[in-house]
Amino acid sequence: MIGRLNHVAIAVPDLEAASTTYRQMLGAKVSEPVPQPDHGVTTVFVELPNTKIELLHPLGEGSPIAKFLQRNPDGGMHHVCYEVDDILQARDRLKEEGARVLGDGEPKIGAHGKPVLFLHPKDLHGTLVEIEQV
Amino acid sequence: MIGRLNHVAIAVPDLEAASTTYRQMLGAKVSEPVPQPDHGVTTVFVELPNTKIELLHPLGEGSPIAKFLQRNPDGGMHHVCYEVDDILQARDRLKEEGARVLGDGEPKIGAHGKPVLFLHPKDLHGTLVEIEQV
Repeated sequence: MIGRLNHVAIAVPDLEAASTTYRQMLGAKVSEPVPQPDHGVTTVFVELPNTKIELLHPLGEGSPIAKFLQRNPDGGMHHVCYEVDDILQARDRLKEEGARVLGDGEPKIGAHGKPVLFLHPKDLHGTLVEIEQV
Repeated sequence: MIGRLNHVAIAVPDLEAASTTYRQMLGAKVSEPVPQPDHGVTTVFVELPNTKIELLHPLGEGSPIAKFLQRNPDGGMHHVCYEVDDILQARDRLKEEGARVLGDGEPKIGAHGKPVLFLHPKDLHGTLVEIEQV
């Protein structure tokens, strides 16, 4: 069911420093910061030949990654995102198989303008998983 | 400098349960477990169209992921691996840019039979990074 790995999201305490590291130290193609007020994060995209890394930093009050950075002050890998063809079909299969869908279970429009859902990390062996319809 | 995302490594407390989750719940193509005694892990490969997920479980005494699982008993994302064309050139550039290379700084033969190095997570904003020459 799951398709491509759309991205790996990495939360960082200093977005500018992290951008410099990925651009300068790792020699990757790095976007400018993109504020995403609807998602409570500012995002920097690191383009790799086969997928991307998304650097996340909290934006505004109640950011969904604020607590994660409190627990991981150096930053760290926050979630992985897999592509699916049909998010409602995927959600129903996941629920049948015992995964808990976060929030009210209805897809939201994600940072790429596509419908997304998040699955409870406890049901995925400690990994927060996002699915995105592409 | 960095090329493709070769894999995302996820440490799990129960390899059989995790294999079942990725096969059954997520509908992915999942390999049989591959014991890697030289690396202190047993690995299951989850094949995605553009990259792979490696599920890791400790094997034998002094596994490099044993402490991680003590700190993260549910499991969690352990490292990301980027491909490079020339690992010695990459290492020298990374060191010049201030990254600490783990171990004695000499590439080891990794789980895919290729030379690899690991970089200190503190220098990569909390993310353990492996580089692999392909």
